Amino acid sequence: MSKSIFYHAGCPVCVSAEQDLIHLIGTEKVEVVHLGEKSSRIEEAEKSGVKSVPALVTPNGNALHINFGASLADLKS
Amino acid sequence: MSKSIFYHAGCPVCVSAEQDLIHLIGTEKVEVVHLGEKSSRIEEAEKSGVKSVPALVTPNGNALHINFGASLADLKS
Repeated sequence: MSKSIFYHAGCPVCVSAEQDLIHLIGTEKVEVVHLGEKSSRIEEAEKSGVKSVPALVTPNGNALHINFGASLADLKS
Repeated sequence: MSKSIFYHAGCPVCVSAEQDLIHLIGTEKVEVVHLGEKSSRIEEAEKSGVKSVPALVTPNGNALHINFGASLADLKS
């Protein structure tokens, strides 16, 4: 994959981090996934190593956890 | 300021995150500061809101904490 994926859950810290980081990397290079709205993608995020949101999964497959908004476990409940 | 500043302390997780994130943002747009070697800049990092490394301070002044390597307090001791 050539795009990064930014997973978030719509919390204020996510939105702030999202805007800044997406701006830095370039909008066209980042797919933004709202796990609160698309819970079907939580499993995919977990497989990428995402443990909390907001998180950025890079094209290299590294999961970078940005600050700390919510754990994936909390999103499932 | 127009550059982001990436603070790290040379731990493996920092180096991995660093390479990926700097590559994504663009090498010329990020200043990399090794706080283990340049402890004189810890105060500056703290003023920017950095609480742990690795962290990226964006041109907008937002401090984004990437994963968790070490707290600034640990770097001082």
